[in-house]
Amino acid sequence: MKARVLVRPKSGILDPQGQAVQRALPALGFTDVHEVRVGRLIELELDDPTRLDEMCERLLTNPLVEDYEVLLEEGARR
Amino acid sequence: MKARVLVRPKSGILDPQGQAVQRALPALGFTDVHEVRVGRLIELELDDPTRLDEMCERLLTNPLVEDYEVLLEEGARR
Repeated sequence: MKARVLVRPKSGILDPQGQAVQRALPALGFTDVHEVRVGRLIELELDDPTRLDEMCERLLTNPLVEDYEVLLEEGARR
Repeated sequence: MKARVLVRPKSGILDPQGQAVQRALPALGFTDVHEVRVGRLIELELDDPTRLDEMCERLLTNPLVEDYEVLLEEGARR
């Protein structure tokens, strides 16, 4: 089974990469974009998704400053 | 409208971050995970999604080594 973990900076946490993108867009003619946040995408193949949350909390994300969301192959949200 | 851009290393392109995660997981007791790839997640708010592909190709991704996928708020895939 394929799973995707979407990791983003918690709201309120500074996101310099997102700010850089947001500032660069108008210079390229994209003027209607706001609220850019840049995070990480982790894709993995695994047999048993029940331990995904534990995996996220222990290795894949930093729960102090990041939120995450798990999407399983079928598009179901856990 | 909220959009998400999922960026991942093209298959065949070395992914050292994914390899590091994959090697670290068994040490934490997660033994059934394979094919880990680490990419980027970009979330943005914009009014007109028609120029998203252009944005991805010009700024958000490196089309030489990365693939991307755009997900719009409704979960529709473009």
